[in-house]
Amino acid sequence: MEDKILLAHGSGGRLSHELIEKVFVPHFQGLNAGSLKLDDAAVTALPSLKPPISDLRLAFTTDSYVVKPLFFNGGDIGCLAVCGTVNDLSMVGARPLYISCAFVLEEGLPMATLEQVVRSMRRAAAEAGVQIVTGDTKVVEQGGADQLFVNTAGLGVVASGLDISGSNAKPGDKVLLSGYIGDHGIAVLSRREGLEFGTRIASDIAPLNHLVQAMLEASKEIHVLRDPTRGGLATTLNEIARQSQVGVCIYEEAIPVRDEVQAACEMLGYDPLYVANEGKLVAFVAPDDAEVVLRAMRATSSGQEARVIGEAVGERKGKVAMKTRVGGTRVVDMLTGEMLPRIC
Amino acid sequence: MEDKILLAHGSGGRLSHELIEKVFVPHFQGLNAGSLKLDDAAVTALPSLKPPISDLRLAFTTDSYVVKPLFFNGGDIGCLAVCGTVNDLSMVGARPLYISCAFVLEEGLPMATLEQVVRSMRRAAAEAGVQIVTGDTKVVEQGGADQLFVNTAGLGVVASGLDISGSNAKPGDKVLLSGYIGDHGIAVLSRREGLEFGTRIASDIAPLNHLVQAMLEASKEIHVLRDPTRGGLATTLNEIARQSQVGVCIYEEAIPVRDEVQAACEMLGYDPLYVANEGKLVAFVAPDDAEVVLRAMRATSSGQEARVIGEAVGERKGKVAMKTRVGGTRVVDMLTGEMLPRIC
Repeated sequence: MEDKILLAHGSGGRLSHELIEKVFVPHFQGLNAGSLKLDDAAVTALPSLKPPISDLRLAFTTDSYVVKPLFFNGGDIGCLAVCGTVNDLSMVGARPLYISCAFVLEEGLPMATLEQVVRSMRRAAAEAGVQIVTGDTKVVEQGGADQLFVNTAGLGVVASGLDISGSNAKPGDKVLLSGYIGDHGIAVLSRREGLEFGTRIASDIAPLNHLVQAMLEASKEIHVLRDPTRGGLATTLNEIARQSQVGVCIYEEAIPVRDEVQAACEMLGYDPLYVANEGKLVAFVAPDDAEVVLRAMRATSSGQEARVIGEAVGERKGKVAMKTRVGGTRVVDMLTGEMLPRIC
Repeated sequence: MEDKILLAHGSGGRLSHELIEKVFVPHFQGLNAGSLKLDDAAVTALPSLKPPISDLRLAFTTDSYVVKPLFFNGGDIGCLAVCGTVNDLSMVGARPLYISCAFVLEEGLPMATLEQVVRSMRRAAAEAGVQIVTGDTKVVEQGGADQLFVNTAGLGVVASGLDISGSNAKPGDKVLLSGYIGDHGIAVLSRREGLEFGTRIASDIAPLNHLVQAMLEASKEIHVLRDPTRGGLATTLNEIARQSQVGVCIYEEAIPVRDEVQAACEMLGYDPLYVANEGKLVAFVAPDDAEVVLRAMRATSSGQEARVIGEAVGERKGKVAMKTRVGGTRVVDMLTGEMLPRIC
């Protein structure tokens, strides 16, 4: 096989088929119950779901990934692309089932780089328990794209009776956060800029579907789930406040930030509230169920550091306010401008 | 609103939301039965299908589009992205339902260009009868990508009992082609290279789901459907010959090529058999049903020029041979190398 990507790998002809047969099929085949048939679309029956779903609803989502650099401490564009889409499905309460995978490659990309990304996708899919069932590859000339972009779309099923949405927060809901914020953004930025602390901060990339499953088993009163990726925790809370038309009040001292991340943010002039995460979620939960959900979260590997960081209120609808450590209150707005391009 | 795409349009923050609210929602909302909820994934029940489907199977596919230039005679990257994915679903016999839409934009792209693409996607989705239900936007710095790439993934349902696959061709099957070949590739190339005949040749981009529906209503003996896109008719027939382990024999004189396309190919040194199409399909049909399927095809707008171009045979398994106009036979191989990069 060629050791670099050529334009002909995107031609649809002989080299496209070689790429599929030698790189994609060997890595993705084992994930899947059926064999990869190489038709224009994958055809698949739904697995027999337990408990069975009477009012079948599908969840469908997509994200493209353009993170730079492709590899960083704690992850790479491959596991990011699988986990990101698994997590988007999880945030509407869906059980993720199938993932698609579409590459845009720059001519000249080392074949070994593509294979490393594909292996990482495979591992992440296995960890999440999803199947990569269909894909596509395009190649553009040198300079037409920056190395490798990947899109994943995801398909999941939503259990009977579930209704989880950013528009469902209610005054009184407790705001739960599953762990430390800012790790992903700072890990990627450190590697990109060659900063020294880059080796000490690792991205938090993780599939959150198992955590969400544990939460849904613990309570029927989870109103909102969302993962604070681009734009960070601050932007995510603002989105929920707007969609639900509630106020959100958070406590600065309750929000967990690692010392290294805090130090890096101070040095670089960033606010961790706006830095991207890829393995965290916020949940709005009815107050009576907050404790039981928190216990369920802490019993999972992704939720060990879960805590209550605030609550939804009936005032200041659509806005987020933070009680600061020194006792004041400040408005926390949505991200304006762009601090950290190509973070995912 | 800004008149150019900024990095901040991909930040997840304020400008990302403005883009969603002012560009995507207004154009895509009307396509959809429900409202766009702006959650991490779209949640949707399946429409009540007629006839009802007892053994529910889903079809799932994805393609990225990097065509250059973005606009050409007869189409653009937007309608290409919708029709391409609708067609991939149709080629396994699925009824296309939902489409996702993920942009990678280059900083500085005129907002008007994005809006023109979005309008074109909307029109194509309306023509095909599919809903665009979820999306994503990433922005990379100038030089990090070439203007605009878009990925669409698609979801459809496969009717009870249908089994259409490139591996189902049988010796004796007639090979049907829905119309003229080579239009798309030559239309794009002409515009890219500024060739004079560019204004006379239009891309054949079209959603093929209505054509396929008519064919499926006419016969239960359609074994294979495939649209000859990248790699052209020759590559598609080779794929089917390999997957099904049959020989394929086609007749040169039966294959329709417009005079302008033939002339352009001769001038440029291309063979129309390898040039991409975006609104054509080939079908392998049991011989007794070929006539009735052909009649059904000709009654639709996309299939008026449908004809039999060859047959599957038991010899030369995995190979395609063409009886030439002068009475000889030549082997028609899969595309090697890349004639026309970024054609879709």
